[in-house]
Amino acid sequence: MTVLVMNAMAAPLIEPHLPEWVEPRFFRNAEELFELAPSADIGWFDLYQPSGMDKAIRLATKLKWLNSVYAGVDFFPLDVLRKRGVILTNGTGINAITIAEYVVMGMLTVAKGYRDVVRSQDRHEWLLDSPGKVELAGSRALILGYGAIGQKVERMLQGFDVEILKVRRSSSEGTLGPNEWRGQLGTFDWVILAVPATPETEGMIGKAEIAMMKPGSTLVNVARGTVVDQDALIEGLKAGRPGHAFLDVVTPEPLPADHPLWDVPNAHITSHLSGRAQTKMFERSVTRFLENLVRFRQGETLQPQVDLSLGY
Amino acid sequence: MTVLVMNAMAAPLIEPHLPEWVEPRFFRNAEELFELAPSADIGWFDLYQPSGMDKAIRLATKLKWLNSVYAGVDFFPLDVLRKRGVILTNGTGINAITIAEYVVMGMLTVAKGYRDVVRSQDRHEWLLDSPGKVELAGSRALILGYGAIGQKVERMLQGFDVEILKVRRSSSEGTLGPNEWRGQLGTFDWVILAVPATPETEGMIGKAEIAMMKPGSTLVNVARGTVVDQDALIEGLKAGRPGHAFLDVVTPEPLPADHPLWDVPNAHITSHLSGRAQTKMFERSVTRFLENLVRFRQGETLQPQVDLSLGY
Repeated sequence: MTVLVMNAMAAPLIEPHLPEWVEPRFFRNAEELFELAPSADIGWFDLYQPSGMDKAIRLATKLKWLNSVYAGVDFFPLDVLRKRGVILTNGTGINAITIAEYVVMGMLTVAKGYRDVVRSQDRHEWLLDSPGKVELAGSRALILGYGAIGQKVERMLQGFDVEILKVRRSSSEGTLGPNEWRGQLGTFDWVILAVPATPETEGMIGKAEIAMMKPGSTLVNVARGTVVDQDALIEGLKAGRPGHAFLDVVTPEPLPADHPLWDVPNAHITSHLSGRAQTKMFERSVTRFLENLVRFRQGETLQPQVDLSLGY
Repeated sequence: MTVLVMNAMAAPLIEPHLPEWVEPRFFRNAEELFELAPSADIGWFDLYQPSGMDKAIRLATKLKWLNSVYAGVDFFPLDVLRKRGVILTNGTGINAITIAEYVVMGMLTVAKGYRDVVRSQDRHEWLLDSPGKVELAGSRALILGYGAIGQKVERMLQGFDVEILKVRRSSSEGTLGPNEWRGQLGTFDWVILAVPATPETEGMIGKAEIAMMKPGSTLVNVARGTVVDQDALIEGLKAGRPGHAFLDVVTPEPLPADHPLWDVPNAHITSHLSGRAQTKMFERSVTRFLENLVRFRQGETLQPQVDLSLGY
């Protein structure tokens, strides 16, 4: 028998569909996970909060395949997995729809100054003019990271007549390579960060990049807080360059109540909720996992696999 | 000479481009408009607030052509214009881009519960879960009114994989006629009102229609407050049917500070700002007006003309 260790939360969705050669063992908390991890041939170790998963992975010495609902796997001990020859499948694309919808929402709410409209209703105050007067139509966006999220954002923005340039690691037709975009940075109204969190992307939006951004432009970050030099961003926002930052991700998370970023008036903080604003994540993950289970049995390649050297 | 009476605000944009046969006379307030109106062959009587325009139109006995930046002309004395044989060109389409963008913003902010995210930042509180968990992808929208705004909304929503049905007065291929949509009303996640304000559309969303809406669905109104039975809507919202209303327009406007609608938690009130959330309205209006001026001189048909019997 092949032992599968996974969260009991997903049991009702998955148990009826498991083939006979799989023996499922469910954990309800981190302690139970630590106990079961050493027996796992296949692991789906996701906890609601990612801390604890590192320890579980180190304990899982029999592991052949690790699955996760997360797209960003930077908090996993990738070197351990690589040394042990474990296959890692992640959740890339699972949350892409809702994250992409969140990006467009962020752009529109910044454009129309919608936060001030919300606050005016709370005060019962009828506004005579719009606090934001930007149209997406005719604006220019740079999408950094052209994976599942970036591609969906591009498709959505086409209906708004936004001109789009995109950057991916290996530049190909219609995309810019990683060293080609900086020279044009000052021409974009929107800079959208959807890159994976890797050593290569850490701090890629630093003091120099922020200083190059178009005054009044907006930085949207749905990647990781560490992709941006946050102190430099706060300075930039105070000077109006960029004009706004829509930050689903920040450093650290959760952001402490006394952190100065909360009060920067043109910083829009959304508590890393972009991927959570939906109810289909587990359904989609389970469907994908069951498909991979068939491939695993038949010795076929699992999809999508994380490259354990690149980290995504 | 042909006398053109118009708002002085637009003078810098328009004066350099006027042909020699036009004599412009500019007003800076309603009093000056009332004084100049009787001399007008061509009138562009828009005031920042529409009250006063009715009086000016009645005074303008020489008027051959009246232009307006407004798309909704229900506050004009259309019978007076019709009797005098005045041509009326309106602003239909001028604000369509920004209003359509506002509609999609409304849908996304309702879907993700974004208002509560705004309030959480104001409290410095990191949220652990999304207050809204709806994806636009896979949802169904009914667009009532398939003019410039409805068509743009449709195009934008296609990139989000929203299934769209639309209703127009004269049903044609791909649209429902005015009596075909009610039977399907309970199947839509979004009901978007973008109809012109006419006697025919007044109260078209009444108690019966509200009761038919899908529980949890959202009503979006960028038409006129009078299209909806507002008291019935408030009752419906309290019962969760519809689940939300995104109301750019309400009755009356401005909504008094003590009106109960402000405090209905699932009513999203945006102070009729959807058309104002942009800076290109005057530029686009002036361009269109100058094109029509050439047509007027040459005896050609002006565009877009309001049908003074239909009211749009």
